[in-house]
Amino acid sequence: MDPRIREHAAVIANHSVGLQEDDTVVIDAHPVAEDLVVALCEEIGDAGGKPLWTVNRAGKRANRAYLRAAGGEFETPEHELALIEETDVYIAVRAGPNATETSDVDPAVNTAYRTAYRPVMEERLDKRWCLTQFPAPGNAQLAEMSTEAYENFVWDAVNKDWADQRAHQEQLVEILDPADEVRIVSGEETDVTMSIAGNHAINDHGKFNLPGGEVFTAPVPDSVEGTVRFDMPLYHEGREVTDAYLKFEDGEVVAHEAGKNEAVLTEVLETDDGARRLGELGIGMNRDIDEFTYNMLFDEKMGDTVHMAVGRAYDETVGEDNEANDSSTHVDMIVDMSEDSFIEVDGERVQEDGTFVFEESED
Amino acid sequence: MDPRIREHAAVIANHSVGLQEDDTVVIDAHPVAEDLVVALCEEIGDAGGKPLWTVNRAGKRANRAYLRAAGGEFETPEHELALIEETDVYIAVRAGPNATETSDVDPAVNTAYRTAYRPVMEERLDKRWCLTQFPAPGNAQLAEMSTEAYENFVWDAVNKDWADQRAHQEQLVEILDPADEVRIVSGEETDVTMSIAGNHAINDHGKFNLPGGEVFTAPVPDSVEGTVRFDMPLYHEGREVTDAYLKFEDGEVVAHEAGKNEAVLTEVLETDDGARRLGELGIGMNRDIDEFTYNMLFDEKMGDTVHMAVGRAYDETVGEDNEANDSSTHVDMIVDMSEDSFIEVDGERVQEDGTFVFEESED
Repeated sequence: MDPRIREHAAVIANHSVGLQEDDTVVIDAHPVAEDLVVALCEEIGDAGGKPLWTVNRAGKRANRAYLRAAGGEFETPEHELALIEETDVYIAVRAGPNATETSDVDPAVNTAYRTAYRPVMEERLDKRWCLTQFPAPGNAQLAEMSTEAYENFVWDAVNKDWADQRAHQEQLVEILDPADEVRIVSGEETDVTMSIAGNHAINDHGKFNLPGGEVFTAPVPDSVEGTVRFDMPLYHEGREVTDAYLKFEDGEVVAHEAGKNEAVLTEVLETDDGARRLGELGIGMNRDIDEFTYNMLFDEKMGDTVHMAVGRAYDETVGEDNEANDSSTHVDMIVDMSEDSFIEVDGERVQEDGTFVFEESED
Repeated sequence: MDPRIREHAAVIANHSVGLQEDDTVVIDAHPVAEDLVVALCEEIGDAGGKPLWTVNRAGKRANRAYLRAAGGEFETPEHELALIEETDVYIAVRAGPNATETSDVDPAVNTAYRTAYRPVMEERLDKRWCLTQFPAPGNAQLAEMSTEAYENFVWDAVNKDWADQRAHQEQLVEILDPADEVRIVSGEETDVTMSIAGNHAINDHGKFNLPGGEVFTAPVPDSVEGTVRFDMPLYHEGREVTDAYLKFEDGEVVAHEAGKNEAVLTEVLETDDGARRLGELGIGMNRDIDEFTYNMLFDEKMGDTVHMAVGRAYDETVGEDNEANDSSTHVDMIVDMSEDSFIEVDGERVQEDGTFVFEESED
């Protein structure tokens, strides 16, 4: 077994979910990630926990077969809900031999299934949970990389000194958390300002998402003004949207366009009222993620990028007296900040062309 | 996908477990059986049920890693127990890439784990359940067959007209169920008689075991007299015992020997008092099972064979007023009845050299 797989398992066990004696653990992983499951079972055995390996939604061929046969009627799987209710730790491993395995499932069927499945999803978020990636060939293909190059990419991003990364990111948290206003400028088309007054900046250092590597907060919904050209592509339900452009007035998207698949962007924005307002501002800080791989778990943490999401805000980012943007969707879009770009916080430049003000003084 | 896999899934769904709308279903299967899981998920989708795919004890590498890391202390996995409690149907698929994957787990660890796991096992038996086999290469290797030959073997045995098989077997049930005494004679060393008075003959036609194909009952514990040479090998906890020989007086084994690994047989007989008495008499009637494959799920149903188990009797075979042989073990051993052999019931010959009396009149 590649020794980096055991490192990956140790990061999950010790850093992300903090395994304890007697923990009941569900590992949800496709069989292509079997090596990581084996390494996790060693960690769980060492810790005195109890593993159960499931291959449910992750079992893409089986899931596709089920969804196509079932048609459009679904109820919550009570047995799976009972399992998660009795579980202390939930570890989801993304990996599959074919990233487009469910591409011929009717989107309406998918939506109906997701709705019935939501109580299971929500129960998982009440546990000590972690979402991570195993570098399977199908995922490498989606990233347009060889399997070996993709393995290097994933394990460089995951097997880090997370205490160091946390300390590095904390410098930005200390700037953003007490701040009132953020302005983001990039190239000729992106110049947007928003209030984050009273909201919280969260340090994502690999606990729930592995890799982590961002600092994120919530804009005050009505405060967003200006324009953004998202120059990194967006993958939404299997379709690629390029060069998405949004214009905000009083927090609301009043105009939009895209290079490719503009209709997908329109569909997202028309989901509900909250889908036309920002729910998240995130700043990528994991410099080991240096390539765009069509995988938001990595892309949004890329160094030298900023992402904004239309739709639902994360509860933990919204201050007690502030409004949380509500929506049934949450779609992240990314701006490249490596050139001709800066971030201003309360009128002070905190990043220029991807370099933070506190990095200039680091060696 | 091999069309016989979808037939196999249909037999499980329609005949063995009788899938119903809203059924919650757990499929416990190693990934090498993914095709059968996919086909089962289609059946479950068609029926309006809800599948969950687990790879627990079946996930041999992961299970081995866990057991070796955990050492000897185990508690019942409450989350898995909660899952099974909320489940209507439990389908276990035997299959693995390496039949000896857990051979370097300390037997004491295995035993401790099995003890902690027993509540889960028992809960499964309270469900509509089925145990079946997928013809993976590792299982073919154990059977000393090519994968293709083993596929033919498994699907011939499984994808049968089970209504026909049930009717065929019912002829033997009608002979055995009201009978008092059975005598089994084979070659020069096997001549054993036993009472089955008041006990029930059960028609195993592929509901819980797939393949099925036997009629089985329980001897009255103290009634067994005579000698048996089990000329088919026995595989017990990874060790092969050949030519096991038992001598019974007043139902108890008073002498035993074996060609190879006699100590294993001794160990079995010394488990407890019940392990020295018979708990089952079974007569194999699945003529599509025509080879010994070191897999009791198949071997005990082989046509032209009889098996006897020392140890625990099955509740459903023991009449209300009769004693059920009790033991913590149940070990089946097989006699080849194809030559120089006969079965007598209440003094009448019902089988000679493998041919039943009712088969002579069948065309």
